[in-house]
Amino acid sequence: MKTSMKAYVYVSLKKSVLDPQGKTIHGALKKMGYKGLEEVRQGKYFELTLDGGLGREEAQTEVERIAREVLTNPVIEEFRCSLAD
Amino acid sequence: MKTSMKAYVYVSLKKSVLDPQGKTIHGALKKMGYKGLEEVRQGKYFELTLDGGLGREEAQTEVERIAREVLTNPVIEEFRCSLAD
Repeated sequence: MKTSMKAYVYVSLKKSVLDPQGKTIHGALKKMGYKGLEEVRQGKYFELTLDGGLGREEAQTEVERIAREVLTNPVIEEFRCSLAD
Repeated sequence: MKTSMKAYVYVSLKKSVLDPQGKTIHGALKKMGYKGLEEVRQGKYFELTLDGGLGREEAQTEVERIAREVLTNPVIEEFRCSLAD
């Protein structure tokens, strides 16, 4: 029986890349009175549902391939994947 | 001594809300030949760096407050927070 599987891909700007959107959010939060924030960075987050035709390891490989080849711009971004249990 | 702490906020559209951006990505991936995908949903991801002036529990509370009051649109979105170890 095939059960679908969830995979998560988190894409964020590389540390060396300026993140104006994050800076804007940080500024807004400070102005609104939230304390204790040092930095805010924003990224993207993808939730992939796999149809279960792949094994766990294949799924991991496939998701990493999608993240690397399609979802991430390697010049300015980096990604992190995880498979739900 | 204060050490800074990382917190992550993941904001995604509620299940009941249509996600055209995710659908477009799904369609594109299918056309490009990636197999085994059932659904793609896109969300936002925030990395907050806290200055360490707060304890762990206070930090958790503050981050949840920021996520609920500022980063999420409660009509169509839901969020999930986590504090880095």
